[in-house]
Amino acid sequence: MAQPINRYKADLRDFRFLLFEHFKIQDILGKPPFQEWGEEECSMILDEVYRFACEVTGPLNPVGDAVGCRLENGEVKVPAEFHKAWQQLWEAGWASIGAPVEMGGQGAPSSLQAIVSEMLSGSNTAFNMYPGLTLGAAEVIQHFGTERQKKLYVPKMMDGTFGGTMCLTEPHAGSDVGAATTTAYRREDGKYLIKGTKIFISGGDHDMVENIIHLVLARIEGAEPGTKGLSLFIVPKRRVDEDGNSGEANDVAIPSIEHKMGIKASATCVVQFGDDDACIGELVGEVEHQGMTQMFMLMNFARIGVGIQGLSVAGSAYLNALDYAKERKQGSSIEHFKDPSAPRAEIIRHPNIRKDLLDMKARVEGIRALIIKLSSHQDRIQALGPEHQDLITYHQGQVNLLTPLVKAYGSDQAFHVCERAIQTFGGHGYLADHPVEQYMRDAKIFSIYEGTNAIQSMDLVGRKLGQAGGNNVRAFLGDIQKFIDANKEHPDLAEAVANLARAHGAVGQTVMQFLGWFQGGKMAFIPLNSERFLEMMSELAVGWLLLEQAALAIEKLGSVSESHPDHAFYLGKKYAAIYFAKNVLSLVPSKAKIIATADTSPNDIPDEAFATV
Amino acid sequence: MAQPINRYKADLRDFRFLLFEHFKIQDILGKPPFQEWGEEECSMILDEVYRFACEVTGPLNPVGDAVGCRLENGEVKVPAEFHKAWQQLWEAGWASIGAPVEMGGQGAPSSLQAIVSEMLSGSNTAFNMYPGLTLGAAEVIQHFGTERQKKLYVPKMMDGTFGGTMCLTEPHAGSDVGAATTTAYRREDGKYLIKGTKIFISGGDHDMVENIIHLVLARIEGAEPGTKGLSLFIVPKRRVDEDGNSGEANDVAIPSIEHKMGIKASATCVVQFGDDDACIGELVGEVEHQGMTQMFMLMNFARIGVGIQGLSVAGSAYLNALDYAKERKQGSSIEHFKDPSAPRAEIIRHPNIRKDLLDMKARVEGIRALIIKLSSHQDRIQALGPEHQDLITYHQGQVNLLTPLVKAYGSDQAFHVCERAIQTFGGHGYLADHPVEQYMRDAKIFSIYEGTNAIQSMDLVGRKLGQAGGNNVRAFLGDIQKFIDANKEHPDLAEAVANLARAHGAVGQTVMQFLGWFQGGKMAFIPLNSERFLEMMSELAVGWLLLEQAALAIEKLGSVSESHPDHAFYLGKKYAAIYFAKNVLSLVPSKAKIIATADTSPNDIPDEAFATV
Repeated sequence: MAQPINRYKADLRDFRFLLFEHFKIQDILGKPPFQEWGEEECSMILDEVYRFACEVTGPLNPVGDAVGCRLENGEVKVPAEFHKAWQQLWEAGWASIGAPVEMGGQGAPSSLQAIVSEMLSGSNTAFNMYPGLTLGAAEVIQHFGTERQKKLYVPKMMDGTFGGTMCLTEPHAGSDVGAATTTAYRREDGKYLIKGTKIFISGGDHDMVENIIHLVLARIEGAEPGTKGLSLFIVPKRRVDEDGNSGEANDVAIPSIEHKMGIKASATCVVQFGDDDACIGELVGEVEHQGMTQMFMLMNFARIGVGIQGLSVAGSAYLNALDYAKERKQGSSIEHFKDPSAPRAEIIRHPNIRKDLLDMKARVEGIRALIIKLSSHQDRIQALGPEHQDLITYHQGQVNLLTPLVKAYGSDQAFHVCERAIQTFGGHGYLADHPVEQYMRDAKIFSIYEGTNAIQSMDLVGRKLGQAGGNNVRAFLGDIQKFIDANKEHPDLAEAVANLARAHGAVGQTVMQFLGWFQGGKMAFIPLNSERFLEMMSELAVGWLLLEQAALAIEKLGSVSESHPDHAFYLGKKYAAIYFAKNVLSLVPSKAKIIATADTSPNDIPDEAFATV
Repeated sequence: MAQPINRYKADLRDFRFLLFEHFKIQDILGKPPFQEWGEEECSMILDEVYRFACEVTGPLNPVGDAVGCRLENGEVKVPAEFHKAWQQLWEAGWASIGAPVEMGGQGAPSSLQAIVSEMLSGSNTAFNMYPGLTLGAAEVIQHFGTERQKKLYVPKMMDGTFGGTMCLTEPHAGSDVGAATTTAYRREDGKYLIKGTKIFISGGDHDMVENIIHLVLARIEGAEPGTKGLSLFIVPKRRVDEDGNSGEANDVAIPSIEHKMGIKASATCVVQFGDDDACIGELVGEVEHQGMTQMFMLMNFARIGVGIQGLSVAGSAYLNALDYAKERKQGSSIEHFKDPSAPRAEIIRHPNIRKDLLDMKARVEGIRALIIKLSSHQDRIQALGPEHQDLITYHQGQVNLLTPLVKAYGSDQAFHVCERAIQTFGGHGYLADHPVEQYMRDAKIFSIYEGTNAIQSMDLVGRKLGQAGGNNVRAFLGDIQKFIDANKEHPDLAEAVANLARAHGAVGQTVMQFLGWFQGGKMAFIPLNSERFLEMMSELAVGWLLLEQAALAIEKLGSVSESHPDHAFYLGKKYAAIYFAKNVLSLVPSKAKIIATADTSPNDIPDEAFATV
């Protein structure tokens, strides 16, 4: 059950297509701040990280699932095999590839980093959570911390000596972060006594590092209620002296870890701070009550990261299902289904299997395009000089707008793709012998943590649509309109582009519908319809990007010989886009109509009417 | 993690509504063959089985999940606690309640039996597979066996002394049953030497019984290929003498059991027959090559059973989510979302949670109605005298038509509901502390076994639609049309009925679309579209039945005081139907349009274009 066999698969050709053909990363390479990066470096990194994922982390994925984590004498033990991989990861530098050079990273473009993350996470989601959260915490300290804090904590978080966490959730404060009751008491030395219990802390303890740097949201005694009264603290597991040495215990205890459906090798801890009134923390930076702003940097980073996690398992699930479909023989082809002596066919010959495979391909590659689109906006922000404030505003607006789509649609669809992949495997997919059942179990958490997908949809509709006076969503819809105008008579894609145009119109109308509800004070309609809208808008975005890829691919098809592997690759882009437009985009207008009916039945039904028990 | 705590929940009021108000079981009670059954007996059975489910099988569900099965010295050990429950189950008679009196059952109507099954399966799916399959195997022997076989095997299968299995699948013959290579060699004594390996055999071995009676599909040496050459054999684990005593081993070996994502306490075995050429079986009945016909009786029984399994976990998942939503406080109500000092609200106050709850309720109660509808058709067949051949034909036609819907839509939606229930629990839903994550893992197998849902959709479109010259589907659509005609101006439901009418039209058109493809020999379009059609037709059926319930409930509302619990119950029926009509039925016409576009992209894409790896 827990053999060290790699089952991770990725299609590097799609990565290269995204970087160099679709989003043209080369436009920003060789210039500040990416002056050290060239096409060749980027391409080489893909090969090397894929090898690492297949050789180091991939084989440990089923092992971690079978072994899980243990709590022994108040300390968490990860699977023994993880220790060596942890060292190798930091030595290779993959975990910190996207971090700024000044904090010890390699300063790679975000779009490259997103793909590196996809491979690391896809090969072993549970393992990759430890470095991922460590890096996120280090970036917060680097960004908001004092010079002393940056020097003291960041370097050891960038070489695998220290781990890092984000501690938000409490037993009664999950989605409602502002209800947190963990308290910080001012000490005379400028530090704080921390007291409270946090739950669901990923990597809250583990034995791959000498110390763990917790970032803890807490309310300074007397601060106002809600999120505005929260501050962020650096709370090490063991106290760190001014030379960076880890010393005595800091009254941070792990009373228990959770038994979960998936990501079993990622320790999910209850963390008790200051049970003996001896837990000392220091404020991140020097200003109190900035906790939410500071934490939001980490949360946005993490939300995009969750979308990547979703994509990562879905991508490998799809490719595993594809390989199985090419090998597994079952039944005869549909033309001879009544002849028992007809030769047995590989199941990829069966149309229903092909439909599922193409469905998975379109969703995986479309969501990947959406993620790299978002990352490219981030890269452009970095690459633009201050004289381009308008463009920076545009790119930042798209990052803000697309983040909830990447997190929620990415995670929902990841789960869906994993479920479909199991179906391709039939009964075998239900067994630990194949990776897909673990992928699906691992994937379920993605729709929940870092803000449930319902929260994401509220963020989209309640905040992001209205940001910058609606400019961001207008720019988004405008970009799509340009594509429609340019391609509505495309010889191969016109019908699909017509589907896109109808979906575009429907999304635009629904935006106005929400505006009307906001203006009319009909607040209950927002959460009743926001999840459906997030899905519609994501489908529009994905359908658009798939069609953009298809148009590009069809253009390139003319200059590629039929025997070259690129020929098939480009054809795949064409069919994925057509499939998605006809089968998914085509439903978007009907979903808009449902929203427009403003069904109130969920609010009208009395509580007692849900059931009589 | 494995505390013996019951977490199974059922709404008995809905059961009573279905039996006594919607499908009026009382019309057939007190008359042959249900002369021993009255309303009071039926009602009492519901209470008693629910108590049994909550007290005996329910508490063992998480235990079974945590402990699973072990293979020791070639024999399967179930969790120790299962042994007593097994005895209690057979003593209480719940497992055999629907079996005919002449074989030792209680001859209960199918509709009552379906509800009993729902409670047994919902409280502990894995445990309930052992008696379920035993009973199914016993019914095949009772129906097709010789007098001697009935006497020898059936009584001990009806009191828990013997277990039973169905052995179809082989390593290379899953969906393609006709590819089976297990062989039966004629012996001089009229018996057969059996040789071959079967996989995925549920209950293929276990230690709660003294013997296991396998029903094995095998090909008699020299028989034709495909399903027509298969025969069905009784193959006991230990040989049974003519007095029914279990004696020496019959060369039936268990080399391994599977490690599965769910139903972990149900042993899924590889079963090797005749590795030492000493496995003796006897033909079921006296005629060779009848295997598929005989097995189909068991398969139809099992397919309906899988739909019930799906409903059973979905029902409890919904009620667990509902209870959690009523207790768990998080955030403030939408009206005060900007005020951090507003009182914390139970999450059932949040509209998005209410929508999910109503969605789950509508699906659960709608699928339950579909299952009891099917069972009622079965009951009517039993109750009708031979002079009503026309009516019997009608009812049997509906049973045939609805079976794939119950199996596939029931199992798909069960999984969906369990997934939504996890979402209601948030992060807590991902933990073994609550039952929903196990429900979802258990539920995934339902879309796969007893014929994958793709196979079900092919059965529906390729076989059932055309059965009786299309009479069955015409009668089905006609029944719905009658309801539409009678209710299109209903004061509360007219809008929802209009949705039903449009869905009805769309399903009718798609039936004609398929007919056209069949006639034009365009076979590939069938499997490309059959799953979407099964979903549409199921939604139509479920939407219709929910509206039928709503119309009935609204009628009754007038005579129930507002303080009576029935008042809320009937209101619930109204809102569930309206919700489903507006949010689910409303998409059926768009799905029909997608089918009508006859997208061929899944067949057009070359194999190499799916990926470059």
